[in-house]
Amino acid sequence: MLRNKGLQAALLILPIDVYYFAGTRQNAILWVPTDGEPMLLVRKSLSRAKEESPIADIRPFPSSKEFASVFSGEQLSIGMTFDAVPVQQHSFYTRALPGRSFVDISMMVREVMSVKSPFELEQLRYSASKLASVFAEVPQFLKAGMRELDLSAEMEYRLRKAGHEGYVRMRAFNQELFFGLAVSSGGVNGGFFDGPVTGKGLSSAAPHGASYDEIQMNQPILMDYAGVFNGYIADMTRMFVIGTVDPELLRAFGVAIDIQEMVRQAMKPGAICEELFLAAATIAEEAGLGSCFMGMPGELAKFVGHGVGLELDQLPVLAKGFTMPLQSAQVIAVEPKFVIPGKGVIGIENTFVVTNEGGLRLSDFSDEIMFLEA
Amino acid sequence: MLRNKGLQAALLILPIDVYYFAGTRQNAILWVPTDGEPMLLVRKSLSRAKEESPIADIRPFPSSKEFASVFSGEQLSIGMTFDAVPVQQHSFYTRALPGRSFVDISMMVREVMSVKSPFELEQLRYSASKLASVFAEVPQFLKAGMRELDLSAEMEYRLRKAGHEGYVRMRAFNQELFFGLAVSSGGVNGGFFDGPVTGKGLSSAAPHGASYDEIQMNQPILMDYAGVFNGYIADMTRMFVIGTVDPELLRAFGVAIDIQEMVRQAMKPGAICEELFLAAATIAEEAGLGSCFMGMPGELAKFVGHGVGLELDQLPVLAKGFTMPLQSAQVIAVEPKFVIPGKGVIGIENTFVVTNEGGLRLSDFSDEIMFLEA
Repeated sequence: MLRNKGLQAALLILPIDVYYFAGTRQNAILWVPTDGEPMLLVRKSLSRAKEESPIADIRPFPSSKEFASVFSGEQLSIGMTFDAVPVQQHSFYTRALPGRSFVDISMMVREVMSVKSPFELEQLRYSASKLASVFAEVPQFLKAGMRELDLSAEMEYRLRKAGHEGYVRMRAFNQELFFGLAVSSGGVNGGFFDGPVTGKGLSSAAPHGASYDEIQMNQPILMDYAGVFNGYIADMTRMFVIGTVDPELLRAFGVAIDIQEMVRQAMKPGAICEELFLAAATIAEEAGLGSCFMGMPGELAKFVGHGVGLELDQLPVLAKGFTMPLQSAQVIAVEPKFVIPGKGVIGIENTFVVTNEGGLRLSDFSDEIMFLEA
Repeated sequence: MLRNKGLQAALLILPIDVYYFAGTRQNAILWVPTDGEPMLLVRKSLSRAKEESPIADIRPFPSSKEFASVFSGEQLSIGMTFDAVPVQQHSFYTRALPGRSFVDISMMVREVMSVKSPFELEQLRYSASKLASVFAEVPQFLKAGMRELDLSAEMEYRLRKAGHEGYVRMRAFNQELFFGLAVSSGGVNGGFFDGPVTGKGLSSAAPHGASYDEIQMNQPILMDYAGVFNGYIADMTRMFVIGTVDPELLRAFGVAIDIQEMVRQAMKPGAICEELFLAAATIAEEAGLGSCFMGMPGELAKFVGHGVGLELDQLPVLAKGFTMPLQSAQVIAVEPKFVIPGKGVIGIENTFVVTNEGGLRLSDFSDEIMFLEA
């Protein structure tokens, strides 16, 4: 892919890019020439990088003086992931490697990472099953009168003890996520997060996820969590109700299930990303729910699914403007949701693998709303 | 400060910079001209940004066509924080505002953020007291035989229920942190993290913090947590032992306490950052502990304290190369620690305010090692 773009090498400096290609997330940069062997330059910890990475040529990060001499080839055009690399880092490497120019390869790297190897699919299946096993425990600890924060803390605690690594990697600038969302009435509000539901959060500094609001009976309670195990992220949403719920919300939930099933059947190699989103939006429109599909009316998120893997926001995105075809072994979290002012948030989310038979679910946990007694 | 640097405006796009100057962490950018009023341009959520921010001129993020016309002044040189802004974002604004050039103001912004207002000191005092109150509960749940992960999960659970916001913001490229560290024998290893102790973590994808190792009797157990409340971060480390501990570690702990006290007394406006670090390193050297001061022998972190506030890694840094003087109302986490191969990790950390009388502790929790019975 580098050669096709007229490049002679890639210099990968984003931690997760280094991890993906070199198998270690130490503080290191990875040099991948089109001719010759890759080289890993490690700031910290060299000993641990050597334990973890199969790269043969692993060296300490060179001093400024030695830097250019380490890269001895004739590489003039070098790929770098400009989506995530800060300007200061780009300037540093531009000065350190005079005579070379850097070219953005973000989309190339993101596309490579979007197609999962059998090893990665196994990891994702493990993450999905661990995540589902904790979702199964929710009825044991969800009670009316507890705060959204308490519900989230119980979920986080169990996920963590199951081996959840905590930190959820997102690639996009300006996104931040802690574990996920447990929202009831607090879900009916806008927010910075590029998703259908944001939650109130605890303050204007952390305006996302669970709030101090108490969970009431007869309201929809949406729980949306990223399960991170061995670096790999599965994403899942389920609905809970203590008591009963407004029929309009029940109807919207049925529409979300229909959309998920339509997308699942269509998730085959060659299907066009934005066509899947538009088909999903059409179902919502036809059900009279177009204005609250994927967010607060007036602040809709414009996608119905997103790639997951080592990051929560990988390619492909099932969204307008994404005209690329799906590829076999891409993994996508499909999350049709509705935010209905005055009533609440409702929807579903599961993570699927793209196959010739359509989307293959990573876990088989029931989609149904779980109704609990008061 | 912008005028002194020959700039006519700043364009702040990093979420935490926008939050600091505009009071909202929605997806927005903040325009601050040296002449005229600031303007906040909001991608999502406009309604929430208006609720949260006192900025008078808040508008929806303009389309590409309208973009340049929104910035109608004669500003030719515009400040931007190149330490954290990705290359793609910089390119976008360079194209969107033709005829303007962007200049790095990272250090200026970081310096402004390093000096805390009375409101911010109040927030930090609150965070420190909340964090200390959860540290006080550790003897209730720390048991021999539990995994480091279980200990961390118990701590995280209680912090979260106390209102901890979860996500810990760090500014430096390549850093990632989840809550903090609970490490026993697992602390004696190198790692990517720019701190004295890294922990093994759960996998090579998340090589930081608690591991699956079981906590043993007669070992030092180091707990280092960031307390994030209303966005403001206090940082604190305490030692726990079930049973007894090696006298060499006890002696090292005494040296850490001596270093903390030396730094505390010297933390007055005008003191030079690197001189405090060098004085700390000298005490460690004289105690014969220079090779394991602030990390694994061979992989030492080269600081003894770091600014905290809305980010865990603010200015000032008590480190070599930082020749700037301390300023009144800067807030610094001082964390002298030792990593002694074959024995364990030991040290102390408290957060202090720089005052004319030296460092003022943000909380008054005892520094002593807590010895628990088996």
